[in-house]
Amino acid sequence: MSSREEDLNIPASSDPRVVVLGAGFGGLTFVRKFRNSGYQVVLIDRNNFHQFQPLFYQVAMAGLEPSAIAFPIRKVFQKRENVFVRQAEILEVDPEERLVVTDRGNVQFDFLVIGIGAVTNFFNNEAIAQKSYSLKTLGESLGIRNRIFEDFEESLMSRNYNDRQKLIDFVIVGGGPTGVEMAGALAEMKRYIIPKDYRELDPGEVDIYLVQSGEHLLPGMRPESQQRAERYLSDMGVTLILNDRVVDYDGESVFLKNGDPILAEKLIWAAGVRCPEVPGLSGEEQVDNKGRFLVDQHCRVKGFENIFAVGDIARMDTDDYPYGHPQVAQVALQMASYVASFLDKRGHSKEKKPFVYKDKGALATIGRNKAVADLPRFSLGGFLAWLIWLWVHLYALIGTRNKLIVVINWMWNYFTYDTALRLIIKQKGNSAEAKQES
Amino acid sequence: MSSREEDLNIPASSDPRVVVLGAGFGGLTFVRKFRNSGYQVVLIDRNNFHQFQPLFYQVAMAGLEPSAIAFPIRKVFQKRENVFVRQAEILEVDPEERLVVTDRGNVQFDFLVIGIGAVTNFFNNEAIAQKSYSLKTLGESLGIRNRIFEDFEESLMSRNYNDRQKLIDFVIVGGGPTGVEMAGALAEMKRYIIPKDYRELDPGEVDIYLVQSGEHLLPGMRPESQQRAERYLSDMGVTLILNDRVVDYDGESVFLKNGDPILAEKLIWAAGVRCPEVPGLSGEEQVDNKGRFLVDQHCRVKGFENIFAVGDIARMDTDDYPYGHPQVAQVALQMASYVASFLDKRGHSKEKKPFVYKDKGALATIGRNKAVADLPRFSLGGFLAWLIWLWVHLYALIGTRNKLIVVINWMWNYFTYDTALRLIIKQKGNSAEAKQES
Repeated sequence: MSSREEDLNIPASSDPRVVVLGAGFGGLTFVRKFRNSGYQVVLIDRNNFHQFQPLFYQVAMAGLEPSAIAFPIRKVFQKRENVFVRQAEILEVDPEERLVVTDRGNVQFDFLVIGIGAVTNFFNNEAIAQKSYSLKTLGESLGIRNRIFEDFEESLMSRNYNDRQKLIDFVIVGGGPTGVEMAGALAEMKRYIIPKDYRELDPGEVDIYLVQSGEHLLPGMRPESQQRAERYLSDMGVTLILNDRVVDYDGESVFLKNGDPILAEKLIWAAGVRCPEVPGLSGEEQVDNKGRFLVDQHCRVKGFENIFAVGDIARMDTDDYPYGHPQVAQVALQMASYVASFLDKRGHSKEKKPFVYKDKGALATIGRNKAVADLPRFSLGGFLAWLIWLWVHLYALIGTRNKLIVVINWMWNYFTYDTALRLIIKQKGNSAEAKQES
Repeated sequence: MSSREEDLNIPASSDPRVVVLGAGFGGLTFVRKFRNSGYQVVLIDRNNFHQFQPLFYQVAMAGLEPSAIAFPIRKVFQKRENVFVRQAEILEVDPEERLVVTDRGNVQFDFLVIGIGAVTNFFNNEAIAQKSYSLKTLGESLGIRNRIFEDFEESLMSRNYNDRQKLIDFVIVGGGPTGVEMAGALAEMKRYIIPKDYRELDPGEVDIYLVQSGEHLLPGMRPESQQRAERYLSDMGVTLILNDRVVDYDGESVFLKNGDPILAEKLIWAAGVRCPEVPGLSGEEQVDNKGRFLVDQHCRVKGFENIFAVGDIARMDTDDYPYGHPQVAQVALQMASYVASFLDKRGHSKEKKPFVYKDKGALATIGRNKAVADLPRFSLGGFLAWLIWLWVHLYALIGTRNKLIVVINWMWNYFTYDTALRLIIKQKGNSAEAKQES
């Protein structure tokens, strides 16, 4: 293994340095908006790309390639000479020493912006954490895709009904947009793909269960949006299990609190998120029970003047949102823009207004021509909501090429009733990790 | 782990059964052409997709996604009711019992068509096999891509020249089309991408070596094609090392027979192929020293009336090709079509003409507007050869969507002087293998 310097090798500068943790919606947007050349900016992420989380389920369902919804961070900042990108894992933050410690070395900061988002919450159930799938990274989405098609292949060689059930049934936990969109996409696969690709299989044997602990899907949306989503999914053949929760999983049987166990080797867990701990900074003073940093009206982490948190990992209590804002992309984007502007003008004496979240509504797609749109003034369903969903997601994607590739794939899938990417491809050969282990 | 039947669960039929091993150019083409409904056809491959090997290097170089040059096998045969596809690893063939043994179960055959191609030949050097990269599968191509960009990221954090050299230098072994195309693509990356993406790096430090044991690159082509390719690559900054060979590798230093060692953690091995053994069938009688099956003028494996071999794994000695045909896609395609037609009419008494290979020439691209075309009557270079190369590869790709996506990517890369896919993405989460191991 090659030797490595003890720091991230950022060129020295007399400008104050802003270190940004995470290149998600929050971190990336902050750096894009923060165009003050009087600062040096260091952006650190564990990946070399920004990933567009709202479409992960389409990667899992073989409708889109990872590259269509990921964008290389370096490309975004090719022309920003004061921006330095480093791929590293955050290990610790030392606010006294103004130091970020990563697995690749340390870096000093004058200002710190934290936007590392949330991770899947398994509610301390180790078995579920080990054996289920979640949809929080592109790598995980690819993992689900490969497993789905591996299991369909295997099911053809099985003459035993229960063995086949384990391979071809799906249990999705969590009735938020991710769970709803995944269930809808699986129902469409069952209807349009399976009968063509796996002629020897009885599509009627493929069961899709969606488990939601509450009374309704899409909590937070209006009742009419919830009912629409429930009706759409039921009509498409998804079995809705409401008011129940998954309590255990052994990799084959999904155990519910109330109902009978369900045989399924694929448990897709979209039941909740929590925030990762930042050692050195996540003291009891700073975080709430979901691990979110308590921030003031300017997104500053409690107790610090120079440390900001934005997006899923920030909890700002306001009159409108007494328990913090919803953990959605819009909040991250707006907080990041706010902090970029706040920090930009920090030298000025003018007092800055507090952050105010502008809610633009919530969307969830269920299938072809079917979506729900819960907008600030009214709620919509059907084809129009579906068009809005398409437009909003396309608009939010970074990169003209990505937009183009996604549109082509969507049109292709729409008109052919088919997805093109049912490929089980895994990286092979020597990796840098293998090198480090050896 | 779920129980599995002892066979591949192919429906019983009174029709004779043709089992086809491998869905490469040979196997896939055979099944596509063999449209005789009086047979049952079983196609077995270790992957669920056909992969287009000539463009693997573009996947490795982040110019194309794997899905653009892979095609799901099941989609090809959705409408062929007598074709059954199974994803399995071939373990053995028992010609007496007319049985194919796979890791998923057994299957009986009346006729067998073997088209499993060739694998990388490391010439028994274990160290090189373990530590180098090769370009024989999509998974390996993705592995190279990820490693290249991981190493560039790491190089930014290194202040030591030799450490950086290990990370950013490339040694390619083998002067055939794969080696030449990979070297050319790396030279273009060094010129157009590195200065933009890795501003802190001195592109002059990136060295690309192409090692060829013979006197010239592209053996088998005309001298003018060889010289063109050598001139193009030299002009693009590739260091050509001719008349030398790599004898050992420790993962950091590449040891040459004559020259000084070269520091490089990426050794890309494209120096030759051999054929995988088929236990039960690869007896001394049947195979040559490269593992190819000796076949008669009708592609029948020596000693058998009902077992055929096509493509890279078949050796047919003719007057024009006394040591067998070149191991290229064209031979596989033509042999497969021949066998499909031979087998189709097998019931007839009419004697079938022997297989004759029609050589359409050879191509290699080096970079933007630069390729060599070694055609039957003359040799071409430059822009025209490059257009021919583009056209031929696009034409040969399976699937309209794939052609469209490849064209868009090529145009994008061409006009922007950029590749869009510099993403380090790895599958994460539970896999079927993990399940089987547990």
